[in-house]
Amino acid sequence: MPAVISSFRTIWLSADAATVQILDQTLLPQTSRIVRLKTVEQAARAILTMQVRGAPLIGVTAAYGVVLAIRRDPSDANLRAALELLRNTRPTAVNLQWALEAMRHVLAPLPPAKRLEAALAKADAILKQETFLTEEIGRHGLALLKKLHKAKTIPGPLQILTHCNAGKLGTPGLGTATAPMYLAQEAGLPLHVWVSETRPRIQGALTAWELSQEKIPLTVITDNSAGHLLQRGLVDVVIVGADRVTSRGDVANKIGTYLKALAAQAHAVPFYVAVAGNTIDWTLRDGVKEIPIEERPPGEVTHLAGVSIYPPNIAARNDAFDVTPAPLITGFITERGVVRPVGLKKVFADHP
Amino acid sequence: MPAVISSFRTIWLSADAATVQILDQTLLPQTSRIVRLKTVEQAARAILTMQVRGAPLIGVTAAYGVVLAIRRDPSDANLRAALELLRNTRPTAVNLQWALEAMRHVLAPLPPAKRLEAALAKADAILKQETFLTEEIGRHGLALLKKLHKAKTIPGPLQILTHCNAGKLGTPGLGTATAPMYLAQEAGLPLHVWVSETRPRIQGALTAWELSQEKIPLTVITDNSAGHLLQRGLVDVVIVGADRVTSRGDVANKIGTYLKALAAQAHAVPFYVAVAGNTIDWTLRDGVKEIPIEERPPGEVTHLAGVSIYPPNIAARNDAFDVTPAPLITGFITERGVVRPVGLKKVFADHP
Repeated sequence: MPAVISSFRTIWLSADAATVQILDQTLLPQTSRIVRLKTVEQAARAILTMQVRGAPLIGVTAAYGVVLAIRRDPSDANLRAALELLRNTRPTAVNLQWALEAMRHVLAPLPPAKRLEAALAKADAILKQETFLTEEIGRHGLALLKKLHKAKTIPGPLQILTHCNAGKLGTPGLGTATAPMYLAQEAGLPLHVWVSETRPRIQGALTAWELSQEKIPLTVITDNSAGHLLQRGLVDVVIVGADRVTSRGDVANKIGTYLKALAAQAHAVPFYVAVAGNTIDWTLRDGVKEIPIEERPPGEVTHLAGVSIYPPNIAARNDAFDVTPAPLITGFITERGVVRPVGLKKVFADHP
Repeated sequence: MPAVISSFRTIWLSADAATVQILDQTLLPQTSRIVRLKTVEQAARAILTMQVRGAPLIGVTAAYGVVLAIRRDPSDANLRAALELLRNTRPTAVNLQWALEAMRHVLAPLPPAKRLEAALAKADAILKQETFLTEEIGRHGLALLKKLHKAKTIPGPLQILTHCNAGKLGTPGLGTATAPMYLAQEAGLPLHVWVSETRPRIQGALTAWELSQEKIPLTVITDNSAGHLLQRGLVDVVIVGADRVTSRGDVANKIGTYLKALAAQAHAVPFYVAVAGNTIDWTLRDGVKEIPIEERPPGEVTHLAGVSIYPPNIAARNDAFDVTPAPLITGFITERGVVRPVGLKKVFADHP
């Protein structure tokens, strides 16, 4: 495992396997607090309140949530209830759905007495697999970044714009969008990252925090700034993660991604989505019509650090994601290489 | 003057003409505090710190700032110093430049003893003229909104998206972008306004505050949400203000405007800029190349309500404006009617 992964962990099982420990991402970067999850309800709540977030990490947390449920009560009824509870936490990230389905697939046929061991093994396997996938994404992404840096007409570091946190905090491992950045930094490729703050939850602070741990040069900007920077030629490439990708390559990702994709297209700057194949939902085609978009509490918009910034009783709307249609996407950085939207089906022809 | 103008004032002279009073916009909507400006330095500081903001109001405040300077010392040297001090507060809004030039033009030829009276008269005239212009913008904008509402294929209120505050708080009078909304509300035209929060300074709270005073239905959204709402068909028209318009119709306005214009174009939603002719800078043509963009302190991005949201020593970039090129603009709502970018030169052929 590369050295760049070791500075913190987002989720891990306690030594006695009785509790799941998570880094509470709602308190970062000011406070690094570890939270112990002892019940499936606590795991569901951690996902819902975004103590853990990022599509891959949500999937892993859900898998361990099933472990916690099974430890209490391995019955069919409790397994069903746990899956149902976890499934309803957040609708957009597909990793949550498939991680739960993977757990169900392994556990449902087993007699209750055998379920805990199997649940632990499967959750561990998902965690390991997700970690491995980020490293592969990083490897292919690094090759891409090297190529892009070589092609630069203006000397200087490769200028990368990212949005939200598709980083180590959103996955086990190196992150998706960030994996190529970490490997580029390790390889000595000069780079600089524009970190978009990502209102309302300001996940840009998470990205700034984790990139700065590895001394990757970065500058934070408001979400409003992306068009301006692209217009001024200050961005060489946009790289984001995804919460769900359809079979034709439409991408649901953090709200605001679509605006960046439009601006990248307007200035002929390549726009990449770093994503493992397991974030592709092969059952869907038209992302705008078919991907459910989570609407979160309006208070996340109207309040900052608990204080209202608006007059009382003002309505707010808080869609958590938007959909970027495939034609705006230059390519997907996946564990199987960099793939154009039209190539996804072929490259992942063996998908489940 | 329409009834809708009377609920608050943004700037006015005290009865003895010795102080200028402003509504401190940095404390709104939580606190309505009146600040008394007694010196030109205080006026300059009010502009710099955005206690007053919005291109037209900046111009008016600068004019009264000259009055304050002349009251202290009407000498040539002091007039020059005052103009210089005020001119250097904020570079992007052209109204600041022309208001100061208008003051200089009137005052410079006069003997010092005659300057105070003339300065007062000119500043008052600028205030009155700006107020009148917003009413004319409102009148032409109302006709446009009526037409757009009639053309709606889906029943319901006219859905307007705005950005920043080009409202009563940014101008004397009815605002620029908001003037048509106030008159539409008065005329009983059903409307609903999406108010974009406008990081980093959250002028969306100002817009929400002033629109809600007149009971105009509104919903606040993050800046990230505009693309998503446009994609979902939830916006019928975008209306923003401007800080400077070039002769060919490129528009400098609050950072983030450009992203909204790109998204409006992608979804064939009309994008209007409400602006008085005096915000057009006839000396410039290419907005991206020629309009100076103010860079404000990074702390406005990294701190919220005085508290850092980022790790210590993180770099931030805070461009206050961006430029939307003319091809993205459906039309300008001006005091002389609704004008396409190519029509500006003809409609304002008598410009100075």
